[in-house]
Amino acid sequence: MHQPWDALEAPRFTGPRTFARLPYVRDLADVEAAVFGMPWDGSTSFRSGARFGPESVRSMSAMLRTYNPVQKIQVFGELSTIDYGDAPTVPGYVEDTLERIEAFVRPLAEAGVVGIGIGGDHCATLAELRAYAKVYGPLGLVHLDSHTDLWHEYFGQPYAHGTMFRRAIEEGVLDSDRMIQAGMRGPLYGIEDEQIPDELGVQTIPWVDLAEMSPARFAELARARVGTGPTFFTFDVDFVDAAFCPGTGTPEVAGPTSFEAMKFVRALTGISFVGYDVVEVAPQYDSGQITALFAANVAFEMLTLQRMAVMQKSA
Amino acid sequence: MHQPWDALEAPRFTGPRTFARLPYVRDLADVEAAVFGMPWDGSTSFRSGARFGPESVRSMSAMLRTYNPVQKIQVFGELSTIDYGDAPTVPGYVEDTLERIEAFVRPLAEAGVVGIGIGGDHCATLAELRAYAKVYGPLGLVHLDSHTDLWHEYFGQPYAHGTMFRRAIEEGVLDSDRMIQAGMRGPLYGIEDEQIPDELGVQTIPWVDLAEMSPARFAELARARVGTGPTFFTFDVDFVDAAFCPGTGTPEVAGPTSFEAMKFVRALTGISFVGYDVVEVAPQYDSGQITALFAANVAFEMLTLQRMAVMQKSA
Amino acid sequence: MHQPWDALEAPRFTGPRTFARLPYVRDLADVEAAVFGMPWDGSTSFRSGARFGPESVRSMSAMLRTYNPVQKIQVFGELSTIDYGDAPTVPGYVEDTLERIEAFVRPLAEAGVVGIGIGGDHCATLAELRAYAKVYGPLGLVHLDSHTDLWHEYFGQPYAHGTMFRRAIEEGVLDSDRMIQAGMRGPLYGIEDEQIPDELGVQTIPWVDLAEMSPARFAELARARVGTGPTFFTFDVDFVDAAFCPGTGTPEVAGPTSFEAMKFVRALTGISFVGYDVVEVAPQYDSGQITALFAANVAFEMLTLQRMAVMQKSA
Amino acid sequence: MHQPWDALEAPRFTGPRTFARLPYVRDLADVEAAVFGMPWDGSTSFRSGARFGPESVRSMSAMLRTYNPVQKIQVFGELSTIDYGDAPTVPGYVEDTLERIEAFVRPLAEAGVVGIGIGGDHCATLAELRAYAKVYGPLGLVHLDSHTDLWHEYFGQPYAHGTMFRRAIEEGVLDSDRMIQAGMRGPLYGIEDEQIPDELGVQTIPWVDLAEMSPARFAELARARVGTGPTFFTFDVDFVDAAFCPGTGTPEVAGPTSFEAMKFVRALTGISFVGYDVVEVAPQYDSGQITALFAANVAFEMLTLQRMAVMQKSA
Amino acid sequence: MHQPWDALEAPRFTGPRTFARLPYVRDLADVEAAVFGMPWDGSTSFRSGARFGPESVRSMSAMLRTYNPVQKIQVFGELSTIDYGDAPTVPGYVEDTLERIEAFVRPLAEAGVVGIGIGGDHCATLAELRAYAKVYGPLGLVHLDSHTDLWHEYFGQPYAHGTMFRRAIEEGVLDSDRMIQAGMRGPLYGIEDEQIPDELGVQTIPWVDLAEMSPARFAELARARVGTGPTFFTFDVDFVDAAFCPGTGTPEVAGPTSFEAMKFVRALTGISFVGYDVVEVAPQYDSGQITALFAANVAFEMLTLQRMAVMQKSA
Amino acid sequence: MHQPWDALEAPRFTGPRTFARLPYVRDLADVEAAVFGMPWDGSTSFRSGARFGPESVRSMSAMLRTYNPVQKIQVFGELSTIDYGDAPTVPGYVEDTLERIEAFVRPLAEAGVVGIGIGGDHCATLAELRAYAKVYGPLGLVHLDSHTDLWHEYFGQPYAHGTMFRRAIEEGVLDSDRMIQAGMRGPLYGIEDEQIPDELGVQTIPWVDLAEMSPARFAELARARVGTGPTFFTFDVDFVDAAFCPGTGTPEVAGPTSFEAMKFVRALTGISFVGYDVVEVAPQYDSGQITALFAANVAFEMLTLQRMAVMQKSA
Repeated sequence: MHQPWDALEAPRFTGPRTFARLPYVRDLADVEAAVFGMPWDGSTSFRSGARFGPESVRSMSAMLRTYNPVQKIQVFGELSTIDYGDAPTVPGYVEDTLERIEAFVRPLAEAGVVGIGIGGDHCATLAELRAYAKVYGPLGLVHLDSHTDLWHEYFGQPYAHGTMFRRAIEEGVLDSDRMIQAGMRGPLYGIEDEQIPDELGVQTIPWVDLAEMSPARFAELARARVGTGPTFFTFDVDFVDAAFCPGTGTPEVAGPTSFEAMKFVRALTGISFVGYDVVEVAPQYDSGQITALFAANVAFEMLTLQRMAVMQKSA
Repeated sequence: MHQPWDALEAPRFTGPRTFARLPYVRDLADVEAAVFGMPWDGSTSFRSGARFGPESVRSMSAMLRTYNPVQKIQVFGELSTIDYGDAPTVPGYVEDTLERIEAFVRPLAEAGVVGIGIGGDHCATLAELRAYAKVYGPLGLVHLDSHTDLWHEYFGQPYAHGTMFRRAIEEGVLDSDRMIQAGMRGPLYGIEDEQIPDELGVQTIPWVDLAEMSPARFAELARARVGTGPTFFTFDVDFVDAAFCPGTGTPEVAGPTSFEAMKFVRALTGISFVGYDVVEVAPQYDSGQITALFAANVAFEMLTLQRMAVMQKSA
Repeated sequence: MHQPWDALEAPRFTGPRTFARLPYVRDLADVEAAVFGMPWDGSTSFRSGARFGPESVRSMSAMLRTYNPVQKIQVFGELSTIDYGDAPTVPGYVEDTLERIEAFVRPLAEAGVVGIGIGGDHCATLAELRAYAKVYGPLGLVHLDSHTDLWHEYFGQPYAHGTMFRRAIEEGVLDSDRMIQAGMRGPLYGIEDEQIPDELGVQTIPWVDLAEMSPARFAELARARVGTGPTFFTFDVDFVDAAFCPGTGTPEVAGPTSFEAMKFVRALTGISFVGYDVVEVAPQYDSGQITALFAANVAFEMLTLQRMAVMQKSA
Repeated sequence: MHQPWDALEAPRFTGPRTFARLPYVRDLADVEAAVFGMPWDGSTSFRSGARFGPESVRSMSAMLRTYNPVQKIQVFGELSTIDYGDAPTVPGYVEDTLERIEAFVRPLAEAGVVGIGIGGDHCATLAELRAYAKVYGPLGLVHLDSHTDLWHEYFGQPYAHGTMFRRAIEEGVLDSDRMIQAGMRGPLYGIEDEQIPDELGVQTIPWVDLAEMSPARFAELARARVGTGPTFFTFDVDFVDAAFCPGTGTPEVAGPTSFEAMKFVRALTGISFVGYDVVEVAPQYDSGQITALFAANVAFEMLTLQRMAVMQKSA
Repeated sequence: MHQPWDALEAPRFTGPRTFARLPYVRDLADVEAAVFGMPWDGSTSFRSGARFGPESVRSMSAMLRTYNPVQKIQVFGELSTIDYGDAPTVPGYVEDTLERIEAFVRPLAEAGVVGIGIGGDHCATLAELRAYAKVYGPLGLVHLDSHTDLWHEYFGQPYAHGTMFRRAIEEGVLDSDRMIQAGMRGPLYGIEDEQIPDELGVQTIPWVDLAEMSPARFAELARARVGTGPTFFTFDVDFVDAAFCPGTGTPEVAGPTSFEAMKFVRALTGISFVGYDVVEVAPQYDSGQITALFAANVAFEMLTLQRMAVMQKSA
Repeated sequence: MHQPWDALEAPRFTGPRTFARLPYVRDLADVEAAVFGMPWDGSTSFRSGARFGPESVRSMSAMLRTYNPVQKIQVFGELSTIDYGDAPTVPGYVEDTLERIEAFVRPLAEAGVVGIGIGGDHCATLAELRAYAKVYGPLGLVHLDSHTDLWHEYFGQPYAHGTMFRRAIEEGVLDSDRMIQAGMRGPLYGIEDEQIPDELGVQTIPWVDLAEMSPARFAELARARVGTGPTFFTFDVDFVDAAFCPGTGTPEVAGPTSFEAMKFVRALTGISFVGYDVVEVAPQYDSGQITALFAANVAFEMLTLQRMAVMQKSA
């Protein structure tokens, strides 16, 4: 059982920073969940810096403890979890980088270990999806974000942090019929942007609509959409209002609070997630590391969902 | 038709920063709306720095796109909009500065171009009001702020960012019967401060009351108050809670979120606004430029309201 | 009558910083309330820095004025209030420091002057409680925080900012039957942490439950719990969401906004508070000093509650 | 004898911040030197913020101790020194502000107490000069800065932080024959700027020349220039390279280090200074408060020079 | 004659930010020098963020005036200079980006207009070199930096900010016999790194050696090395010590001060520069914008060198 | 042979942060040097925060490469080096913490592995000295700092970051005849402070004297002083001017540059160092992480000295 270093033995600010002070391990034996970084910010359309997202999230993840009192779930100590290190990346070469990240994630998919990716710009998610789809086939997607990331291309090039879910559909690694995304807001490039999800067959819930919906209702819609098949859960921190995540590349105002966000996350039980990520943490723009702390807690909620899934399966 | 530089031709972080990457133009032919800066912070009662507000808002306005998906309105590309540059100011001389800003704004009023001022400390609004009143006569005012700015004087001098609306009433550029202000909170100098609006005939809705009111109800009150006459809309960023606008001179806690604020703004349709401003952005105190991003979005909502007014008129 | 320097004589940013520009006085004659600092951060479990909390809160308290428009109470000018300076502390020696803070606070308790402590890490509250309990006997406690601070020990040592309320119960300075705490959230060290309040006989309301409760209902529970006996009110700024208090040692996300928090505070009328504090302000992590501004406003609301209590008594 | 609170009684980070933890006193009996703030930034040509200079310098002056080991002089404990508070100012009104600062400083000049002004933008120095000249007649000036501040006017107005020494000459409060300034660098508005000092009869040593000069040689030139008459010593923190004073309004690169600067200051013995100031600290742009710390140390060296002058006089 | 907006008409903090408040012009008629941005940070090996370098340098270039008092040269008003805007870039695609930057710079080379590039990561210089070499043939290079940027490849890919000068030699756009670089310091990947310059035929002067050399002596070596042929001058801000340029991607300590650096730059007269750049400004890591201010001044010194060259040619 | 992860395999910003990307190992077999953290800031007299010093230095140590080009020494790859993790500490309990750090360091001393401690406040050095003295007997000391740290006590308590070297002499772990310290500057508590080193028999060279001395001369004095016996080398980052180390607890201005500092360090060859440390990095006050980068480079120079000593011994 891999678990964090005991926080009562030495203060949580001691020791080289791994996620939640978990052991940094590359051997996947006896591992149920693996947290890893995707230090990449080459495909951001506005502010770069997210290559240091994994470092910053690891730093604040020292604040995490082991038990989730809202879900009433013991996470660490029950779910064998490791810090799997960081995927290799190549500054300036998005396509090469995607291949390297995919190759890094593939062993997790093959070993049946659930991964929790920490980003890093959102384009990296495409690499994770490819890795899981190689093993599980086309995936469903639950996607919380302020942007759809379904644009066609940027500046004549195909891979960017605003286009990769369209690429994933085109490549067949995502099944658009099993995709649901929510939280979208902020000005668009034009009215035609509004039709993109429909054209692609994706279900999109803008924030103004989600704001009127209970977490339970949203979770119901998500479960109906993704069904029982293998599904990925991706959380872009710009889903929350900029005041809660200043440390990100393309923040948007007029969005949810961190408490509202967490309620939507906690409601997403009962889905067959094969992988998760929380992305777009850019610490250069953060304030008191609150964005990193928020992302660390999102990852903790994801580990909780995973522990709940394991318990349900063995029940 | 003046409109922003195409964001798909070169990334939004390229090029000298004008508002929303609009052309920087001083000729008003074929212009419907003009965004301009008021780089002045000489009359602030606490933290200075707002002279760099226009620079910071221009910087983050690069994040704006062209279509408003909540109001379902195409803004840029339909409403011919320019960056009109910055009004001249004279550090240390508030009265001279007010005259220069007024002279800078007058051509807009005379040409029937709606202005969107970016501040800058709130005292600059007096100059805008004078310019518009010269053309339109006494104005109505919709005012979102945490302070009434109706105090008599500071330190024996008449012009300050807490007194200018009283000055404007005295000068006859504002018609107090057509003024409504909302969002007021924070400690006052004494109980007599509470009677000031009544004495002056201004309608004031403190935040604790506004918080219990729907945006639609607030808009109804505003429309009833300002009627169909020429009206100005001024938005002080300290209207929102300090967590959403750390970058301002006199922040107040325990206020609205940015989402709540935006709903109040979006509701203000159907009013004959002849000018708008969003003021008090002090980037030295900002965090991840979230205050500037918020102000840029408020300006975008104002442009949306203006486009809606134009559509209604031509309908 | 001790009251702040007139804000209309010289701008609020002038003069050496005392709390709310009150006189810095050590003589307690004619004093009803005394604000003082506890510059100590030696017992924090994560981020240090709160030794500069009092300096930062004094700095932003210049923004305070004299009248509370929500409670409709004139505070300064009616409640004779001073800045009593800072308690002495000894870096590295928590037990010695607790004794020095207690000795510093004792004269207040003995003179019947209500104290408003500004922290500083939360462990300092134990010293205040000891001082008041010497005069008043065992105290009730109203405690807003994201943590219970009832852990047994850290690293084999008894005094830390997560253990001091257990110590206070053991020492008999707090009466656990008269303790109520609310706002708790964030991961715990294990399921056994959830049973601690029950074991000690403390009433604990996690944030997920408090969020569903009206301020009036919470105040009713608090009054029922603490009764009419002498009670202390302690407010840890990490009670609010990290976006509203980035400047603190152990922030937690997914909590209340500052507006929600203030409503819970304002509701706590009718309790016999003998002392108050607001703690854990660490300005090194703050953004635009919003945490300090929030803490200054919490202290102002406490002074308001105190003025209301005085009025009620004399009524 | 007024002296700082004992640093071994309570840590230097405790207590309301006065300069060097000196008593805040307005009675000038038994006072030899008075440190005071000039919280004004209304006449800056670029970055504002210096109104918080006095607060920031007081904050870091807590680091000062009592003895100067380079000059071998006991300062505090021998030279009776107080914190005299802050001069009143009026945002937006430079001319009124200059009158208020002058009125604030006059009692010092009249009582023969040497003042150490902490700024605040450099325009405030004009007010000090007027106050001292009223008592002592036209003054000599030793001026360390990267700018001459002898420009004619800004934007058609006479008073600004780049014009006040020309004003002072015109008003007869400075005697240009007894003025020496050094450290000038950075681009100028045109070649004609180079002739200004000559035209006005001021001796100006650009940094590229001063850099080749020993501190002793510079002091010799200064003593020769100002003679034995009453002289003022003004130090603009932008004299040092921007890396040593990021926290200022108009920083210039390619200048002296703080060690070089301090050697020039320490050499200035044997001059009849009747007043001193250190100005242009804008903490919003500072890094780790190093600019404030530097300014506090410059003030300490000024107090040392004053103590040396007193010793010499009484010898 | 293109020149900056008059700084005495409106304060330097007014107006959309172009370099030195020059006109933003794309027509090259009557232009002698063109400043442009290269907003790219995709090929940095450590900290990203330099895509905002041009914005930050433009911001602080408002501090520039028109005359260089050390060189005794009127720059603006004599040398017709414009802001040419920013080169287009494509995040994630270094090779495509290099082509776009080259295409953007080519018209300058063809028109005989000298360019001053503002970066952006150093890899962009390769694009400039290609553009100039197309017109002038193989170039000489004067290179001030703490790194040689002659490494072979990073992670198996050819283009990065540490490899581009090797690429330029291989491509024949640089003539290694006419290359001189100075300022190198910091740990290397291994002893073999020390032999790289020799192997490639480049003259390299480490900082420990340059520190012992007069600026005149260095300039003599440079002139001897590059001869009279067309030469490019590239300045990486990490040439100076990290305290003077915190805002950069790969800072190195124990280097020159900004004053020392400027003396080396000013000495480089009499060389046939066809283009210049100053690169690697990453404002997210800056302090008080001192790195941006330094870079703006380096660019001003480059413009001065250019004006001197024009004068010499026409003499 | 333990050495850093290859920087050409994955970018230096990838992977959990250990010092210089060395393996995190607790087994001392085949280890020559061990870098470890001392996350403690409980005994600082001014600004806390240094408990995060090790995290910050590890973060920037990713910039280190393997070869020292000034000393011409291959460090990593030749000197088997590990990251040994962090010593345990107990907030609030300095005496207990010193015991825990000593116990953590003892195995290194016993195994003959040289330690490089990263602090953390300077008081921690006492624990290291105790550990080494247990094995080697009384130690000599080379000490670069702006403070002597020989004061008697603070606030009546013996252990603080300004007293520990006096304690070490009293305890017999340091031999005052073999102690040399240099760099002292800044105001003192009184003239009697100047006599302390003499009274204790310690050789102290103030910065004003060291500044006049060549590095070679200083090293000669140091070698003469410490002789051939076991010696410790401690480097407080406040030795350098505050502009080079803003991120520290008690910065002092008017000191050496980082280049001057490094020359003094590099000169210290030929001394039998049994342990080293570099302390007082407080990242909350840092700018662009330059203090952390500087400290990482000091540690690298220490490892270089150690490699040179090993080579000399085996020669």
